Amino acid sequence: MAVQRSEVACALTFTVQEPAEFALGIGVGLRLGRTVDDELSVVGHDQAVGVRVILGPDGNRRHLFSAEPGELSISYRAVVADQPGEPQRPTEWDLLTALLPSRYCPADRMTGFAQREFAGYTDPVRRVQAICEYVFEHLQYTPAASGPTTDAADTLLDGRGVCRDYAHLVATLCRAVEVPARVVAVYAPGLSPMDFHAVVETATGGQWQVWDATRLAPRSSLIRVSTGRDAADNAFATILSGRAELDRMEVTAIVLDGDLPADDHRSPVRLL
Amino acid sequence: MAVQRSEVACALTFTVQEPAEFALGIGVGLRLGRTVDDELSVVGHDQAVGVRVILGPDGNRRHLFSAEPGELSISYRAVVADQPGEPQRPTEWDLLTALLPSRYCPADRMTGFAQREFAGYTDPVRRVQAICEYVFEHLQYTPAASGPTTDAADTLLDGRGVCRDYAHLVATLCRAVEVPARVVAVYAPGLSPMDFHAVVETATGGQWQVWDATRLAPRSSLIRVSTGRDAADNAFATILSGRAELDRMEVTAIVLDGDLPADDHRSPVRLL
Amino acid sequence: MAVQRSEVACALTFTVQEPAEFALGIGVGLRLGRTVDDELSVVGHDQAVGVRVILGPDGNRRHLFSAEPGELSISYRAVVADQPGEPQRPTEWDLLTALLPSRYCPADRMTGFAQREFAGYTDPVRRVQAICEYVFEHLQYTPAASGPTTDAADTLLDGRGVCRDYAHLVATLCRAVEVPARVVAVYAPGLSPMDFHAVVETATGGQWQVWDATRLAPRSSLIRVSTGRDAADNAFATILSGRAELDRMEVTAIVLDGDLPADDHRSPVRLL
Amino acid sequence: MAVQRSEVACALTFTVQEPAEFALGIGVGLRLGRTVDDELSVVGHDQAVGVRVILGPDGNRRHLFSAEPGELSISYRAVVADQPGEPQRPTEWDLLTALLPSRYCPADRMTGFAQREFAGYTDPVRRVQAICEYVFEHLQYTPAASGPTTDAADTLLDGRGVCRDYAHLVATLCRAVEVPARVVAVYAPGLSPMDFHAVVETATGGQWQVWDATRLAPRSSLIRVSTGRDAADNAFATILSGRAELDRMEVTAIVLDGDLPADDHRSPVRLL
Repeated sequence: MAVQRSEVACALTFTVQEPAEFALGIGVGLRLGRTVDDELSVVGHDQAVGVRVILGPDGNRRHLFSAEPGELSISYRAVVADQPGEPQRPTEWDLLTALLPSRYCPADRMTGFAQREFAGYTDPVRRVQAICEYVFEHLQYTPAASGPTTDAADTLLDGRGVCRDYAHLVATLCRAVEVPARVVAVYAPGLSPMDFHAVVETATGGQWQVWDATRLAPRSSLIRVSTGRDAADNAFATILSGRAELDRMEVTAIVLDGDLPADDHRSPVRLL
Repeated sequence: MAVQRSEVACALTFTVQEPAEFALGIGVGLRLGRTVDDELSVVGHDQAVGVRVILGPDGNRRHLFSAEPGELSISYRAVVADQPGEPQRPTEWDLLTALLPSRYCPADRMTGFAQREFAGYTDPVRRVQAICEYVFEHLQYTPAASGPTTDAADTLLDGRGVCRDYAHLVATLCRAVEVPARVVAVYAPGLSPMDFHAVVETATGGQWQVWDATRLAPRSSLIRVSTGRDAADNAFATILSGRAELDRMEVTAIVLDGDLPADDHRSPVRLL
Repeated sequence: MAVQRSEVACALTFTVQEPAEFALGIGVGLRLGRTVDDELSVVGHDQAVGVRVILGPDGNRRHLFSAEPGELSISYRAVVADQPGEPQRPTEWDLLTALLPSRYCPADRMTGFAQREFAGYTDPVRRVQAICEYVFEHLQYTPAASGPTTDAADTLLDGRGVCRDYAHLVATLCRAVEVPARVVAVYAPGLSPMDFHAVVETATGGQWQVWDATRLAPRSSLIRVSTGRDAADNAFATILSGRAELDRMEVTAIVLDGDLPADDHRSPVRLL
Repeated sequence: MAVQRSEVACALTFTVQEPAEFALGIGVGLRLGRTVDDELSVVGHDQAVGVRVILGPDGNRRHLFSAEPGELSISYRAVVADQPGEPQRPTEWDLLTALLPSRYCPADRMTGFAQREFAGYTDPVRRVQAICEYVFEHLQYTPAASGPTTDAADTLLDGRGVCRDYAHLVATLCRAVEVPARVVAVYAPGLSPMDFHAVVETATGGQWQVWDATRLAPRSSLIRVSTGRDAADNAFATILSGRAELDRMEVTAIVLDGDLPADDHRSPVRLL
């Protein structure tokens, strides 16, 4: 397997109503064996805004800055080159954490339902496949049907959602049947309409395997941005204080060197 | 079909902590063609407490009284004789009401799930049968797993409950696929362990038909007490003000003249 | 007090996607002493659609009809003349019902909070005034912050809502401190921007008294449309089956003969 | 300030119904400057069960083992000596994480309420003090009123709870007004009745400060066990797979060398 190269970008425009502190989660995640050549520019009142970056667990980065009232333009671009190689294996602590209920994945409330539907599959990978198939079959991809407080229980009942809701429901059902699962924000070449995307990783077969119940983009060319328990950990933009509204958002993600890979959305795939 | 005779009784003991107003929903429901020979006694501090009765829609009765702090004993006994005959048909207003979401039956939140699972059954009776079978298969009858604020969404996710929860989930799924449904509190000869019981009536085939996804007692010998949207309308005891705690409860219900009927819990049955 | 005359109207346009059954709750409520001169027209494909009307409790009417796919125009107009007079007093059954939790008014979940805040007011009218003031002070009137599944608990926590949410929160807090409360859909002369409106009636002082924590329109000129437990009972349009979307809605309500009355939104007012 | 010495212990008895994997969170948390002399014994069928320990972030430990069906006895004892010294300061990543909503602390749903009540206090410490006072005043300490799925929104509405619920509500309200907050499981000398205890740490004044809205034990002698987002991260026992039930639990915690300190439950205190 050769080096895999991608190019991603996003442009966000906010109207800042009151002096605001931002945390952005749009920068490509860091890892050994990945070369990232990227650039972030934040402009308010025709002036560059100073940005500082912090690094968290799992290669997550956050870009932090303060913005004055007015229009704010954020523009990010990255070329990413991934050496194929051994991804990090889940630690025992990772496994424990990935079984816990979280804000949008209340696995503790759905144990009965999940056990009844999926505990019959004793092989963990087969179990996850059954969950992904169930979610793909039972949800209708529907923009604007869900909102920022929607959790996986709401989604199962309502039967509608977007990628974030699909990921939350898959992760919740997995945890409820004892499969460690986490949520990953990604750039997704081939996604249509193009947007930020969210998928699930399960700790199965001794490694993290990636699943996408929306089946909207091939998994092997996804580019990891942020890894966490659910969307709370992975927001592309958090207003820490003050007030600002997103006006416009544009996302790009392409595979350099070659065609988009195929995906049966069934066999296990690893995300770099 | 001959006259159907039953005998029911219940004894409740409360500790009243602060002067309290009670509304009891334990008196057998009234209807044309039913003869009820019953007696209610409420005793506090060795004295009979004065009780007044009010009549609501659908033959519902409530017994109202005030109680002083101390131990309170309630004892009810009824012999019921039902002439077979034409039960009242649902009015158009009944149908509208029986489609609405209610406190413990949030059908509006479960439309997607219910439509996906049950809309394929176009015949309304077949649809309800499928729902009852689903609920029977997916829930585990588990005392104390649910509580007074548990609604049908909680129950579907948790997979456990008692008769009230089964009834709420069936009624909610029915309403979510456009089958009018209401909840009925009943005395249930044959129920084991004996207790107050709750079942569902659907407006199907131009009449009210009764269903019990717990399958714990034959439907044709149930004795209607109270009819409503859900458990909020059908509580056997409501403390309207003050404070009191239920200490002990005993319920009896038997069929006079003959054996307990059989029930396949599948074919439609009408409740008198 | 002289006869009170008002004129109300509304125009609704739907796109019907699949053959649909409608129930409209836009017709002015009926009562003794009220003269209603009204007209409803439903037009699809340039043809009048046949409408039948049913009467429910509390003078509620529903207009029922079937619509074929395509655009659908609904237009309603009424001139209402109200003789002043004794309004109907709440029955004991009304009082019991108005204390129950309902779909959007989960009073059973909010007892602790409500008791802590409002039980100190022993006079029922004063208690309701304190609740209305609390809700007025704690909520921000915010279109589109809430949705069709939002209940009063969500609203208290989120601090934002529209008239329906204000009414639900007031009714819920009242019930949780033992004040019977129901929700009324009204036409509201003076409301700005003009829309359907929702208020609360409490059974206080032996009669139904009306309260509006939004304080957006004077209470004494409100025209009752529909009375119920909460918005589930009072929807202006329910799609019973099939699929249709509301495209446009226009509401008018004016007082004939004289100026809009003043309202301190504090003293008790009765709604005819 | 001298070395602070404490002795803690707990004994747990489980009935294991199906072969089960356990993760225990009862071992005193590790940190620089703390000496822990402890011993854990797990006995099933009169045989010692092999236990392995893993270390997570913030000095959290988990003890992991497998248990066969039957009775299981767990016994833990520790003597802890804490050198006074500089506690670790929150990193920027800690601050971001401690602002996120979590399973039992849905701060995103309570922003309006929290802002309305507490945003007026501009000083962060004063803000937290006001929140702790509000929670102390508004909740009634009530065993068994809440359960394992109860979140902070439920608790605010219901007005009742135990230490875990108090901690969740404080942490949620803090996050909703932009004060980073996390939940800490502790041994609590002086707590009565003695039990595992839960408190909150806020990142205020550049450090972690500890708060206990139950006011049931002095903060300066608490012994940190586990630090996390909420109770999901801090469970004293998690059954990862299989089935087991807790039969009995006994907890001890005492201060060696001296009396229990006093606590005004108002001034900031740091937890080692």
